[in-house]
Amino acid sequence: MNAIEQKFARLSTDNAPGQEVRLRAEGSQPQAKGENLPGTPVDFSHGDVNDSAFAPTPGSLEAFVDGVHRGGEQAYTEYRGGAALRERVAAHLSTFTGAPVSGDRELIITPGTQGALFLAIAATVTAGDKVAIVRPDYFANRKLVEFLGAEIVPVDMDYLGNDVRAGLDLGQLEAAFKSGAKTFLFSNPNNPAGVVYSKEEIAQIAALANQYGATVIADQLYSRLRYTGTEYTHLRATAMNPDNLITIMGPSKTESLSGYRLGVAFGAARLIDRMEKLQAIVSLRAPGYCQAVLTTWFEEPKGYMDTRIAQHQAIRDDLLKVLRGIEGVAARTPQAGSYLFPRLPKLSVPPLDFVRLLRQQAGVIVTPGTEFSPHSADSIRLNFSQNHQAAVQAIERTATLIERYRA
Amino acid sequence: MNAIEQKFARLSTDNAPGQEVRLRAEGSQPQAKGENLPGTPVDFSHGDVNDSAFAPTPGSLEAFVDGVHRGGEQAYTEYRGGAALRERVAAHLSTFTGAPVSGDRELIITPGTQGALFLAIAATVTAGDKVAIVRPDYFANRKLVEFLGAEIVPVDMDYLGNDVRAGLDLGQLEAAFKSGAKTFLFSNPNNPAGVVYSKEEIAQIAALANQYGATVIADQLYSRLRYTGTEYTHLRATAMNPDNLITIMGPSKTESLSGYRLGVAFGAARLIDRMEKLQAIVSLRAPGYCQAVLTTWFEEPKGYMDTRIAQHQAIRDDLLKVLRGIEGVAARTPQAGSYLFPRLPKLSVPPLDFVRLLRQQAGVIVTPGTEFSPHSADSIRLNFSQNHQAAVQAIERTATLIERYRA
Repeated sequence: MNAIEQKFARLSTDNAPGQEVRLRAEGSQPQAKGENLPGTPVDFSHGDVNDSAFAPTPGSLEAFVDGVHRGGEQAYTEYRGGAALRERVAAHLSTFTGAPVSGDRELIITPGTQGALFLAIAATVTAGDKVAIVRPDYFANRKLVEFLGAEIVPVDMDYLGNDVRAGLDLGQLEAAFKSGAKTFLFSNPNNPAGVVYSKEEIAQIAALANQYGATVIADQLYSRLRYTGTEYTHLRATAMNPDNLITIMGPSKTESLSGYRLGVAFGAARLIDRMEKLQAIVSLRAPGYCQAVLTTWFEEPKGYMDTRIAQHQAIRDDLLKVLRGIEGVAARTPQAGSYLFPRLPKLSVPPLDFVRLLRQQAGVIVTPGTEFSPHSADSIRLNFSQNHQAAVQAIERTATLIERYRA
Repeated sequence: MNAIEQKFARLSTDNAPGQEVRLRAEGSQPQAKGENLPGTPVDFSHGDVNDSAFAPTPGSLEAFVDGVHRGGEQAYTEYRGGAALRERVAAHLSTFTGAPVSGDRELIITPGTQGALFLAIAATVTAGDKVAIVRPDYFANRKLVEFLGAEIVPVDMDYLGNDVRAGLDLGQLEAAFKSGAKTFLFSNPNNPAGVVYSKEEIAQIAALANQYGATVIADQLYSRLRYTGTEYTHLRATAMNPDNLITIMGPSKTESLSGYRLGVAFGAARLIDRMEKLQAIVSLRAPGYCQAVLTTWFEEPKGYMDTRIAQHQAIRDDLLKVLRGIEGVAARTPQAGSYLFPRLPKLSVPPLDFVRLLRQQAGVIVTPGTEFSPHSADSIRLNFSQNHQAAVQAIERTATLIERYRA
């Protein structure tokens, strides 16, 4: 393989969420045992934005149509997004995170939070750099760092061995910085484990980053969807040097607006400037008309988000009840977000085969744990932003198949 | 400057089209002569998609709204775009270009044609490679190649010295391939010059690329908008090795659908596969709901596109009449697309200052020629997809200022 073939060989999307339909009939299909299980198919690889589950927030389509009618000024914004819209969103994010954001200098609107992540990392990291990354964490983080020719320094998070703190190994994080890592990238709430970093963990991250002059990229995509009793600390509202921090959010998940593909990154103006330059050659700008949907963000009807969070919490609790009834399953209660990341008992088939059998025999699509960490082969990720009843039944079918294939 | 600062210093967007609003009050404002000229402001840096000029094609908004109502299946497509939609678009592109396209294997839907360009180049080129690029050509081509750490080998196009052929220096192209360039990137119709490559030029590009085993990325964004008497040759319908060719199009321009930010790339399956892997970490997918608008592409009402092309041709002719009345202006008649790229006579102020004065004194925004080639400082690019009357009056004001600042 030549250099570019090697580069792309590391970017496999074969098991990436959402790509299941691209999977071809493989040469070696796993040997199925027993009959298929009837029931409504559930795709846990992403949230369900249909009316039967969690539809886009009210007013979003109307805001889009208004944007189309505004014409050219909405279609062609600055690359970093429309100026008035940036001010409006920045005001909400200042309140939400507890630290000021300048819409003029410190915020960029991107095509999805994936776009924001790519731009943030590519604006910070170059070939040969070392980047500290949590295990487990969002599957694209590793691929982004590898694509840029940088080196990953893993930092473990013992989410199953903790319940108050997320369980980040702060000693490993310091060792990573000592070894020369100048960037730390993490999601909070963590994707896939659904855990939230404690106030002390966030304070320690800030202290270490300041001490070693590291840049931190905090992916806070799910930070609005927090369950009862969860305390959340925004890194940007701590002693962290703001000139070395980018925070990423977006209306894609909690608000079920992912079909509009919008994200925002906010923080150090010098990095936002770079991100805009890069956006200019990567995608030019977030879709002009879609940007208009951001006018509804943090402006949902009173009580709407509280209801939505309570609905997710009820699904979480019911799924956990089923999962914890399966011998050998370990599942930490998600404190925020819509992901469950249970560790399964030992099975008689390899983990990727089990994921395939689950799809074929039970109509249940999950994302294999290896997408998130090489140590998570025995875990599966479930996005439980689904129709409540269908999700519970799908997990019951999953339980049946776990018994059928138990080692 | 460290490595990453240098990398971003080359990506300046200060004079990029659409970024004019970000320009700060500069330290050294050019000294204006005379009074400001009244008239409707015209932003020639991009097309005008308002109702008073060229509104989005009929049915586009309805197709979008239908997409939103389809829910999750439209919001979450495969990363390369919805399967049925890819088949539909591929059938149109097969007919349009005269060579078959497989929607399943050979086509990807991207966030804008800018997204397609980025992915195509990043899927083909890696650090240290040589890439042949036309001068003048689309401003992002150079920046994309530089961002990837590759080296530009320029190939000149004498568009002012030719009228039937585009004027590509085929000797320089061969020399570029001989010197090791393995990728050739060009727009046809050319942006900014509006010229179309002749059948012979395209045949020569194919022959040279085949001989040297080079990959060609053909940006055909404007290839639907062709004026009377223009013969157009699709590179992919020639003897060019299809395994080394990516063609890029999109409904953004001719159809005034740029606010939806959609592009497509089609060609070699091995490169489309890489582009999808990269899209997965750069932006995940083109906006789910926006993809639905592609159902209207190449399916416009009968006669609609003919009328639209005739309207553009009439504006082109009226603007050329004014421009050719200015002593010392050289302007080749665009054969396709909506760009004019006149060379101005010698002025008493530097070219970038003239562009600023034009904005400040005449309400006319143009893109400076240096964005397209270091040799084009004395040219300006005008996107004439505008309200007809406003465009003519804006060019008359431009003529007045040229006289005022003539050297």
